[in-house]
Amino acid sequence: MFQKLGAEFIGTFWLVLGGCGSAVLAAGVADVGIGWLGVSLAFGLTVMTMAYAVGHISGGHFNPAVSLGLMIGGRFEAKDLIPYWVAQVAGAIAAAVVLYLIVSGAPEFAGPGGFASNGYGAASPQGYSMMSALIIEVVLTAAFLFIILGSTSSGAPAGFAPIAIGLGLTLIHLISIPVTNTSVNPARSTGVALFADGPALSQLWLFWVAPLLGAAIGGILWKTLGSEE
Amino acid sequence: MFQKLGAEFIGTFWLVLGGCGSAVLAAGVADVGIGWLGVSLAFGLTVMTMAYAVGHISGGHFNPAVSLGLMIGGRFEAKDLIPYWVAQVAGAIAAAVVLYLIVSGAPEFAGPGGFASNGYGAASPQGYSMMSALIIEVVLTAAFLFIILGSTSSGAPAGFAPIAIGLGLTLIHLISIPVTNTSVNPARSTGVALFADGPALSQLWLFWVAPLLGAAIGGILWKTLGSEE
Amino acid sequence: MFQKLGAEFIGTFWLVLGGCGSAVLAAGVADVGIGWLGVSLAFGLTVMTMAYAVGHISGGHFNPAVSLGLMIGGRFEAKDLIPYWVAQVAGAIAAAVVLYLIVSGAPEFAGPGGFASNGYGAASPQGYSMMSALIIEVVLTAAFLFIILGSTSSGAPAGFAPIAIGLGLTLIHLISIPVTNTSVNPARSTGVALFADGPALSQLWLFWVAPLLGAAIGGILWKTLGSEE
Amino acid sequence: MFQKLGAEFIGTFWLVLGGCGSAVLAAGVADVGIGWLGVSLAFGLTVMTMAYAVGHISGGHFNPAVSLGLMIGGRFEAKDLIPYWVAQVAGAIAAAVVLYLIVSGAPEFAGPGGFASNGYGAASPQGYSMMSALIIEVVLTAAFLFIILGSTSSGAPAGFAPIAIGLGLTLIHLISIPVTNTSVNPARSTGVALFADGPALSQLWLFWVAPLLGAAIGGILWKTLGSEE
Repeated sequence: MFQKLGAEFIGTFWLVLGGCGSAVLAAGVADVGIGWLGVSLAFGLTVMTMAYAVGHISGGHFNPAVSLGLMIGGRFEAKDLIPYWVAQVAGAIAAAVVLYLIVSGAPEFAGPGGFASNGYGAASPQGYSMMSALIIEVVLTAAFLFIILGSTSSGAPAGFAPIAIGLGLTLIHLISIPVTNTSVNPARSTGVALFADGPALSQLWLFWVAPLLGAAIGGILWKTLGSEE
Repeated sequence: MFQKLGAEFIGTFWLVLGGCGSAVLAAGVADVGIGWLGVSLAFGLTVMTMAYAVGHISGGHFNPAVSLGLMIGGRFEAKDLIPYWVAQVAGAIAAAVVLYLIVSGAPEFAGPGGFASNGYGAASPQGYSMMSALIIEVVLTAAFLFIILGSTSSGAPAGFAPIAIGLGLTLIHLISIPVTNTSVNPARSTGVALFADGPALSQLWLFWVAPLLGAAIGGILWKTLGSEE
Repeated sequence: MFQKLGAEFIGTFWLVLGGCGSAVLAAGVADVGIGWLGVSLAFGLTVMTMAYAVGHISGGHFNPAVSLGLMIGGRFEAKDLIPYWVAQVAGAIAAAVVLYLIVSGAPEFAGPGGFASNGYGAASPQGYSMMSALIIEVVLTAAFLFIILGSTSSGAPAGFAPIAIGLGLTLIHLISIPVTNTSVNPARSTGVALFADGPALSQLWLFWVAPLLGAAIGGILWKTLGSEE
Repeated sequence: MFQKLGAEFIGTFWLVLGGCGSAVLAAGVADVGIGWLGVSLAFGLTVMTMAYAVGHISGGHFNPAVSLGLMIGGRFEAKDLIPYWVAQVAGAIAAAVVLYLIVSGAPEFAGPGGFASNGYGAASPQGYSMMSALIIEVVLTAAFLFIILGSTSSGAPAGFAPIAIGLGLTLIHLISIPVTNTSVNPARSTGVALFADGPALSQLWLFWVAPLLGAAIGGILWKTLGSEE
């Protein structure tokens, strides 16, 4: 169990450092910046790389919503849920600390700003409403869990799941960064919300409720439609 | 059969939500927008992710032209064609509804606009003629089916087909978004045409005729050139 | 042999239609255009997709320099070299014809322009000298063949070679589009040079000499350093 | 041993030619340039392609920090460390020579400029402090080694490691190009520092110290958390 929780800590650390780090450091630089396409790729590659590295140890969730959805889908034991959540949130917070240290060495540093936090309404990157945010986070997390459960099922080709899951997360970011800055992961949202300027903490509830609800729907959907067991 | 049609519904839902969603929400944002490169990647990843998730259930078509081409190529039974088409078109329409709900939460929302629909002439992203649109949709769908039939044939390495097919669809978008906004998929065209402003519905015939014709050519080409059976 | 030559024809057709097509149609569009990054990805994906589709039929060369390098590396029979070259050049020319038809349907069409042809000096995208062009085409083709021979060798993991080779071609374009518009493939250069405005035909010699020389070096290098046979 | 050192020489040559070459030649071109996203992809693809080509010969390190981390992780013999380092640095220098020759054929060539070298403070692309540079290079190299050790461990699916490792390097660049221009590889830093204008040579110590320290941490972390042996 120590190894499993360590793997979840490191994997979620990597997800937040890589995904939010690329957003904060590299997305908006003029001319050569990586933009939302680069950030989308970065988030996906954090999951793909760590799923290949430690997927065989912990399952490679790195996300409280994924742990819940896998539990509902019958692939993860309920007694491990809270320990996994704690390790994931701790890893996300640790990454936010490291990122803050790096960012504070920028010339003329004047605070973290949005710090890649998630938001809706005035805090949405393009001003989308709370309702748009709720819908898109629920639907995308449901699809994410469906892809995870399907690509790791016994009928799918072995070994490819980290590609499907990692690049699935890239796809999710390509769609939804303009709406919510993309969560689908309550740990990722929590880690940076603790440091961000603005309403990130007061809006954090949505980025727990919507991903967890979506993950539950995805787990049920797979059991209904996809499961051959 | 219920599971198969459910898988086709969800897969086509995902294709339209992800592909058209990224186009509508994220492509044209100033400075950090994902552009046509990001949209091309998004379309391809919808197919790659769902092919890994449910390819072993339904075959992972998500596209009426693919179902036709596989039937002509001898890999899909004719009696299942119409049920698959219905599930695919229904999934595409459902995705367009969800996307419309999300988009309507944008600040100063004033209608769906083009809504990532396909078109030619004045409705082509770069003003290409109907003849250019016909040629490119036929040729690209033929090549798409050829890749699908080849990469899933018994001679090809097992498990890699979703990568070849998904990124093949990315490639197709990299070529043809400027000409027709890229269909090669009548269900995708139909789903968003029902909501789009402009001539999308009156031009929809081309995005059934050309992909289906191209798919038939691709199926015949594979049977002539590639098939070892 | 008919199937092999047909596969090489179609594969090279796809390489030129997809790679040069994305460059001509989509690269330079303002704001949302795919740029050289998108073109690099497109070239690589043409090879990756067709290598998965027909690699088991013809070997998936799609390039006269690759055929030569594989012959020198001991993987391809000398008697098949000229037939392969003919099929490859014919496929490239056919793709250029189709692309020309599509492009001529653009509004205010006034000729093909550079048509994604290769060049040096004033015809280099960034004005690089003939010497720079020679060096880069030789070195990159040598590395390309080394990657092809290595990733398809018996010691390498099976099934992954199309990914390594296709994305290796993407990498080659990321480096060298500014210098020569990237050839490493005499068939690709020939197909579009026949239609392009400017000095493409008079400079075509370099895009046969340098890739073939580089491919020979790559083949010898692998036999010296990599081969376990 | 001759084959192993030759493979490391060629692989590191390719890493520097492709990664630094794409940065110098293609990143900053107006409108169609590949930007930092393209450079990130290029670095990753150099490692992915050569790992598939010669990973079975030399292990595919191409980086002195990787060799050290693998030694600490128990996967590489100490007696081979210095020969590997020499081959890697020699390959990097050779690539810098070839790149210099190509670049010197640019119109109005007036010196190599930064030549894709690494730096901090005034030499950081976005002016980040030495402390930010140290932290990010240590943390990213540690994570890189953790991914390498994990994805090549007996529990991970076979054959996929070059994808995880190569795209892991892409991810590392997406995060850290703005801070240090991304090293995590002392050989890469050394090769171009010998030719660059500016303080690259006097700052080179950091790009040996931080990656080697990070690699050692990554090796220890894996032995503690991940190793099943």
